[in-house]
Amino acid sequence: MSRRYVNQLSNGDTVDEAFLVSDKQLRANRQGNLYLHLELRDRTGSVGARLWNATEELARSFEPGDYLLARGKTQIFQGSLQVILSHIEILDPARVEPEDFLPQSTQNIGRLYNRLRDVLLGMQDPHLRALVECFLIDEEFVAKFTAAPAGIKNHHAYQGGLLEHVVSMLNVADRILGLYPDVDRDLLLTGIFLHDVGKVAELSYDRAFAYTDEGQLVGHLVMGVEMLRDKVERTADLTGEPFPNELLLRLKHMIVSHHGALEYGSPKLPMTLEAIALHYLDNLDAKLHAFGREIRDDPSRESAWTPFQQSMGRRLFKGTPRNAPEPDDD
Amino acid sequence: MSRRYVNQLSNGDTVDEAFLVSDKQLRANRQGNLYLHLELRDRTGSVGARLWNATEELARSFEPGDYLLARGKTQIFQGSLQVILSHIEILDPARVEPEDFLPQSTQNIGRLYNRLRDVLLGMQDPHLRALVECFLIDEEFVAKFTAAPAGIKNHHAYQGGLLEHVVSMLNVADRILGLYPDVDRDLLLTGIFLHDVGKVAELSYDRAFAYTDEGQLVGHLVMGVEMLRDKVERTADLTGEPFPNELLLRLKHMIVSHHGALEYGSPKLPMTLEAIALHYLDNLDAKLHAFGREIRDDPSRESAWTPFQQSMGRRLFKGTPRNAPEPDDD
Amino acid sequence: MSRRYVNQLSNGDTVDEAFLVSDKQLRANRQGNLYLHLELRDRTGSVGARLWNATEELARSFEPGDYLLARGKTQIFQGSLQVILSHIEILDPARVEPEDFLPQSTQNIGRLYNRLRDVLLGMQDPHLRALVECFLIDEEFVAKFTAAPAGIKNHHAYQGGLLEHVVSMLNVADRILGLYPDVDRDLLLTGIFLHDVGKVAELSYDRAFAYTDEGQLVGHLVMGVEMLRDKVERTADLTGEPFPNELLLRLKHMIVSHHGALEYGSPKLPMTLEAIALHYLDNLDAKLHAFGREIRDDPSRESAWTPFQQSMGRRLFKGTPRNAPEPDDD
Amino acid sequence: MSRRYVNQLSNGDTVDEAFLVSDKQLRANRQGNLYLHLELRDRTGSVGARLWNATEELARSFEPGDYLLARGKTQIFQGSLQVILSHIEILDPARVEPEDFLPQSTQNIGRLYNRLRDVLLGMQDPHLRALVECFLIDEEFVAKFTAAPAGIKNHHAYQGGLLEHVVSMLNVADRILGLYPDVDRDLLLTGIFLHDVGKVAELSYDRAFAYTDEGQLVGHLVMGVEMLRDKVERTADLTGEPFPNELLLRLKHMIVSHHGALEYGSPKLPMTLEAIALHYLDNLDAKLHAFGREIRDDPSRESAWTPFQQSMGRRLFKGTPRNAPEPDDD
Amino acid sequence: MSRRYVNQLSNGDTVDEAFLVSDKQLRANRQGNLYLHLELRDRTGSVGARLWNATEELARSFEPGDYLLARGKTQIFQGSLQVILSHIEILDPARVEPEDFLPQSTQNIGRLYNRLRDVLLGMQDPHLRALVECFLIDEEFVAKFTAAPAGIKNHHAYQGGLLEHVVSMLNVADRILGLYPDVDRDLLLTGIFLHDVGKVAELSYDRAFAYTDEGQLVGHLVMGVEMLRDKVERTADLTGEPFPNELLLRLKHMIVSHHGALEYGSPKLPMTLEAIALHYLDNLDAKLHAFGREIRDDPSRESAWTPFQQSMGRRLFKGTPRNAPEPDDD
Amino acid sequence: MSRRYVNQLSNGDTVDEAFLVSDKQLRANRQGNLYLHLELRDRTGSVGARLWNATEELARSFEPGDYLLARGKTQIFQGSLQVILSHIEILDPARVEPEDFLPQSTQNIGRLYNRLRDVLLGMQDPHLRALVECFLIDEEFVAKFTAAPAGIKNHHAYQGGLLEHVVSMLNVADRILGLYPDVDRDLLLTGIFLHDVGKVAELSYDRAFAYTDEGQLVGHLVMGVEMLRDKVERTADLTGEPFPNELLLRLKHMIVSHHGALEYGSPKLPMTLEAIALHYLDNLDAKLHAFGREIRDDPSRESAWTPFQQSMGRRLFKGTPRNAPEPDDD
Repeated sequence: MSRRYVNQLSNGDTVDEAFLVSDKQLRANRQGNLYLHLELRDRTGSVGARLWNATEELARSFEPGDYLLARGKTQIFQGSLQVILSHIEILDPARVEPEDFLPQSTQNIGRLYNRLRDVLLGMQDPHLRALVECFLIDEEFVAKFTAAPAGIKNHHAYQGGLLEHVVSMLNVADRILGLYPDVDRDLLLTGIFLHDVGKVAELSYDRAFAYTDEGQLVGHLVMGVEMLRDKVERTADLTGEPFPNELLLRLKHMIVSHHGALEYGSPKLPMTLEAIALHYLDNLDAKLHAFGREIRDDPSRESAWTPFQQSMGRRLFKGTPRNAPEPDDD
Repeated sequence: MSRRYVNQLSNGDTVDEAFLVSDKQLRANRQGNLYLHLELRDRTGSVGARLWNATEELARSFEPGDYLLARGKTQIFQGSLQVILSHIEILDPARVEPEDFLPQSTQNIGRLYNRLRDVLLGMQDPHLRALVECFLIDEEFVAKFTAAPAGIKNHHAYQGGLLEHVVSMLNVADRILGLYPDVDRDLLLTGIFLHDVGKVAELSYDRAFAYTDEGQLVGHLVMGVEMLRDKVERTADLTGEPFPNELLLRLKHMIVSHHGALEYGSPKLPMTLEAIALHYLDNLDAKLHAFGREIRDDPSRESAWTPFQQSMGRRLFKGTPRNAPEPDDD
Repeated sequence: MSRRYVNQLSNGDTVDEAFLVSDKQLRANRQGNLYLHLELRDRTGSVGARLWNATEELARSFEPGDYLLARGKTQIFQGSLQVILSHIEILDPARVEPEDFLPQSTQNIGRLYNRLRDVLLGMQDPHLRALVECFLIDEEFVAKFTAAPAGIKNHHAYQGGLLEHVVSMLNVADRILGLYPDVDRDLLLTGIFLHDVGKVAELSYDRAFAYTDEGQLVGHLVMGVEMLRDKVERTADLTGEPFPNELLLRLKHMIVSHHGALEYGSPKLPMTLEAIALHYLDNLDAKLHAFGREIRDDPSRESAWTPFQQSMGRRLFKGTPRNAPEPDDD
Repeated sequence: MSRRYVNQLSNGDTVDEAFLVSDKQLRANRQGNLYLHLELRDRTGSVGARLWNATEELARSFEPGDYLLARGKTQIFQGSLQVILSHIEILDPARVEPEDFLPQSTQNIGRLYNRLRDVLLGMQDPHLRALVECFLIDEEFVAKFTAAPAGIKNHHAYQGGLLEHVVSMLNVADRILGLYPDVDRDLLLTGIFLHDVGKVAELSYDRAFAYTDEGQLVGHLVMGVEMLRDKVERTADLTGEPFPNELLLRLKHMIVSHHGALEYGSPKLPMTLEAIALHYLDNLDAKLHAFGREIRDDPSRESAWTPFQQSMGRRLFKGTPRNAPEPDDD
Repeated sequence: MSRRYVNQLSNGDTVDEAFLVSDKQLRANRQGNLYLHLELRDRTGSVGARLWNATEELARSFEPGDYLLARGKTQIFQGSLQVILSHIEILDPARVEPEDFLPQSTQNIGRLYNRLRDVLLGMQDPHLRALVECFLIDEEFVAKFTAAPAGIKNHHAYQGGLLEHVVSMLNVADRILGLYPDVDRDLLLTGIFLHDVGKVAELSYDRAFAYTDEGQLVGHLVMGVEMLRDKVERTADLTGEPFPNELLLRLKHMIVSHHGALEYGSPKLPMTLEAIALHYLDNLDAKLHAFGREIRDDPSRESAWTPFQQSMGRRLFKGTPRNAPEPDDD
Repeated sequence: MSRRYVNQLSNGDTVDEAFLVSDKQLRANRQGNLYLHLELRDRTGSVGARLWNATEELARSFEPGDYLLARGKTQIFQGSLQVILSHIEILDPARVEPEDFLPQSTQNIGRLYNRLRDVLLGMQDPHLRALVECFLIDEEFVAKFTAAPAGIKNHHAYQGGLLEHVVSMLNVADRILGLYPDVDRDLLLTGIFLHDVGKVAELSYDRAFAYTDEGQLVGHLVMGVEMLRDKVERTADLTGEPFPNELLLRLKHMIVSHHGALEYGSPKLPMTLEAIALHYLDNLDAKLHAFGREIRDDPSRESAWTPFQQSMGRRLFKGTPRNAPEPDDD
């Protein structure tokens, strides 16, 4: 039987579900009695919860990142829903479906991945195609690449988000490359595939989304170059020739320059046609995705504007929505 | 008979052609003899020229912007070609073809314009379609819009460049809008048409490319909003209804925000999906065009790099060119 | 009988007054009982209020922006005064004086407006004088211009603030123009009048101060240019001649450049004497007004410094005030 | 008999005048013959000069900063006037009028200084008036203060320019202080007097304008504070009381903060009303002066624009000048 | 008997100690009963405290900055320790040891000061040595210099911190000067001594750390130059010669430029070898100190990272600490 | 027999030496006769040269980067020395000593390298020592590392400059590490060794100093991380254990963050003690070296200031030099 998700709860509901604990605090009220304040989440969102009359022993028995079976009742507190808990119970992670507890792409991962394969393995250049193959025959890599989010907060911040972002960019590139004949098709497509590849190890995304130590200390641009080097060394097994040096330089350059400016963390400015195209296609897709989501998800019906978005430095205008057609099917 | 253009001259050639004078200086050599130093141009480029033993009378008889019949011989001086003139003669502008003297789009203007009409008049929204019609039935406007460059130095800096840039963006948008269903198709297409429309009056481009006084004092963003207002007032004649207010706001917003940041001269940041899409499509097209031209036109065969581009803050990597397919035909 | 204003309330007072509701939240306390948390304001400030044991029906019966008759008693809660309500009642807006509920200029609006007329209609230039007349015979415009604040938070943020700011700048210009003979007197005076004219539609100020949609999407610089264009077209009726083109350019330029730098939202830098004068006179008046108000209104007697002012990026030094003379009467 | 100044020379003139040498180079032509290339200046400008067939002995016999009697004839070379010298002779500085060789204020220094005295000695505050007196009874200081330029390149870059700038600001302040009653009159007037006082030692201006070592290493803001301290210690002799500490802090603060922002070299932002007023009045006067001079002095009649001004980051619009009234007489 | 310090308190402890009051608020709970919320501190940290059923009289009887004898019991509230007070009593400042209530250097002040003397009085240059002597024979100065913190929040923010910072920099300079023979040893050592000398009056540090009025209005760079001038005037008594002018300029320059960039509050960039060395040694010592303290003091054992440090704009990586040797003894 | 170097030439000398051609232009004089303008260099500097009556054949027979035997005579032209050539002859590169033609370190490379070995191989940590060994047993690497400059223009821009910079930093670190016990000695020493290691391939320095394609497209930070990875894989052969992961992260982090800020090309800010120490020690050494060289090499004796240094954004104060001790010998 399918669970009731956080985004389906309303005031006065009875709750009896598994949740991922994303925050835990033991507090005392004014009378000195201890209570637990928890944040419980599943893949659709999070909700605050309180367990009155808690003990230190109970509080020590689990940590954020653990799963709990939580029973209780919802109510509104200071304008937000919370769960007043009557009972909690630590769950064996083996008994839950991890994908229930992290935000997920709404698209079909398998279809996205097939589309990625089709576009990339259809390239003419034997070296670039061999390079992509070296990535795609690495099952551990593919498992991570199809599970990773594209970020922890901004655009595509859900499992499968990285794949969704890359496939969306490949689709755009596939459609417009014919209009820009100076741009090398296979180079741009490979650059799109690789530009954020370092994120599979920059982020951790099996329970909650976070940066790994390596992600914070080194970053996905440099990590992506390292991953590229590892695979490039193996393409000769497929092609019988060494990977062309200039082609490798152009790929590394696309990875390190794709943020487009030093102050955004790229140590080099884009200096090739494919690098500049990659930079703008990446921004176009990421920003349209992030803006679209903010506008669609904004719950308020009273204002034509979203709240101020710190990371964008602005509010977005929702206005009166105009009618939208169905998306294409690539 | 077709003329010999500046880009066809080489060392030791005899010259007998009409040119546009783009600079004129009367100088004295060390012996005190006067000579004229001129810059002569046609649509393919410019060349320095000297006339020894000139007089003040001759120097006063014409100004930059006039046409001259120039006879003489080319030679190399300090690494550049120059013309040593034996005879000059002022020409009646009515006797020259102005288009021989300004850089031109290499594309067919008529076909570009038809493509523009097809895309824009195929829109569903009656108000936006009527707005476009109000522009396109204004013959003076159309004459300017199809003649204007998109800039005086950077991308698309030639007659017809504005039209070429807008049609290229329309083609891109047409192909990718299906991938972004949240973006309002007709609004984005109209925004692409209007975003640089102020340039038809910001720049002057009948003889040499320059900013008009209004262009420098007010700028094409504000001028574009004014032009939009003029036409919007007339759409009711075609639709029988007033132009919807929010639609007008969204169009004005796209025009004023399309530079994407305050420091680039937009008084507002993009705050709608269509405004953000416009901003990135504009940059993508302009930068690919400008980078591509720098790389293609760089004459040096000895270096894999273009010279440093001041306006881009970088050199571009030419490397070893890879094979490019034919452009699509939209 | 005059009302008791928010700034006259103290701990333990009985309240029985009309207020503007500026915020409303329905909350539940720990026992699950609902209560209303309101923010009530009049033109002197705002105060929090609670109504215990509220119902959803009551909460739905009014919205922020409505007027309430509120009865209850004040008390201190967490260092701030709040009203514990015993009774509320929705009021017909027709029964209240709107000016009781928005901050007001402390100066006489009529006298300010007469001063504006005297200075502007005393100009020599027939076209500029006619332009001003076209604005001043537009009664709807004058009603807005004399009611608008100059901003929603910073300087002159009260009804009549825009007029007060403009008249103060006119007075300064009137006194110093004789010292700068290169500056065109009539042009500067007209530029002062017009520089913020777009604010009459950029802001809404009949109940609470806010940005309009157009204000946020387009901004008062561009809106001011549009308003100028509308009026300029009518000056020929008064002067019998078309408005001189260069004069119009200079006015538009003053409006779009008056923020003085691209990063402050001006798409053009000031490039005329009058534009640069306008920029500094605007800053001088706005900053002296804002600084003066912060220093005068700071309630603390214990510190020689105001609190940190986010929008100014600094604290202000109050020190020991020195004796100040009476203001002039212009 | 008055000299013929550099700005009065034209092509083919005979020259026989004293000049200040501002640059000197000994060069060889292609045949290996030595010639001298000099820059000669007087207070109206500078002109290049050549002496063919020079010797090293002659070249060593004088240095930039010396005065020469120069005889020869003018001609145009590469678009500029130059003097072909037939004879040069070193002059004893005692035989020239130094004021003929440095740019001068066009205003009467004595009248400006009297105006300064009148305004400042008319202040009410006994301590501030005593402070000003301590400066004005220091004859060496007054000699420098009335001779110094306000800068070496930008605004008021001529002898007497500093005094002219300060008196102009005093006149503005005097006229508008009545409109801003919160601003302490005497404090602002004294701050205007002192804000650039360090320039009397930051710059050298007896022969050519330059920065002193101390000017470059320490700067006029810090040097001004030091000069203020020296004089403050002596006010007690006049007033019989120590100078009030807070008053001294406010004066120092005005000096160090008057550039208005850290990136313009002020280590502190303006934090008092008088400091903020000083900052804007300084900019208003300096910029109006610099802009006005650029526009008035621009020799070109063909363009409505000045050349690009590097230090202002823009060109200025001259347009068609409108009629200007006579300046006031303060 | 030694006190129990704030950093020794844990949940459920009985408290009966003197504290410095650093914040005081009188609040009402929902029933309208008043209570006091205090912040109590000693040199090891601060703790919140509440006294239920307080009166306005009691609240008015003391202010922040006063010492209280506080009795009560600790408990955890919202994750932090607080003291529930049963009794408070105002203490005569004469009865407490002030050094118990401000953070202190953990190093021996006497030894640090001796090291400072040894290094500085061992300099060769008679003028610089005399200058240092003029500072060190000023007992009031030495008392302040050895008590002042180097800042109120960032690095070395405790009593004796300024001395500790300066001695640490002297030790570094002493060790590396031999490697940079172009750097003038005595000039750099004196510059290190003087660079922050203005902090002794920029900050107040007898009870709580704060900026003085002069510190905020003028700043320690300018104040340091003033202090230098005062002492320089007296060196002639020791050396029998005036202090060399260029030497004084170089010292002033080091003080005003040591922040290294205009946007960090230095009105001049470093333009001598000693000034550039001073700038980097200052940053090296301050940042190593601040980073080291953040890493060492971070209480969390669960994360390899410190919390985000606002003033540094980053989190710091603690990782798994590696073994560290004993510090040298200079 | 040793050559006569460029810095030993003076006016009127006879020249008969080998030079590296660093620039070549074929020009025509006013009579249309062709001549060659060359720039000839050796390791001490460069000099212009002209060969009158040249032919196109001669001009095509060699390129910049070739060596020429050049005979002629020096003379002064426009204030600079040039060589009037009578004869040129292309030289076989095998017949010249390349080190005669590139700027060289003035220090003994062998001694510097021994010092590097001593410091690094004396580290305690077996993994870091093994890592260094893996670099130092790679003879090709060592040959490059000891030959590379540290930059092409700024500090240490000569052969051996990279080694000299690294050894200087090691010496500084060695001396001061005892003062900062929290800093991990071996980690900092290894970070110093590795921070610019990518420069051995970012730059080319066998004939003239330039960036390689990879250097411009990828940069020495990313290239250094790649080189580190290659060597790290081999340390297990020496230690019998895998290289610790966190240690590797810390090293990569030091390399990518050592420029200290995003706008200087570091994709990450320093977030460990060793990374922040590396950043400041690098700047200290590079800036002291560059400032010292500018001051020492400035030929002018007339000014106390160097010319404006574009890359530093300032002039440097030379003043009157004070006496400097002998450098230490490490």
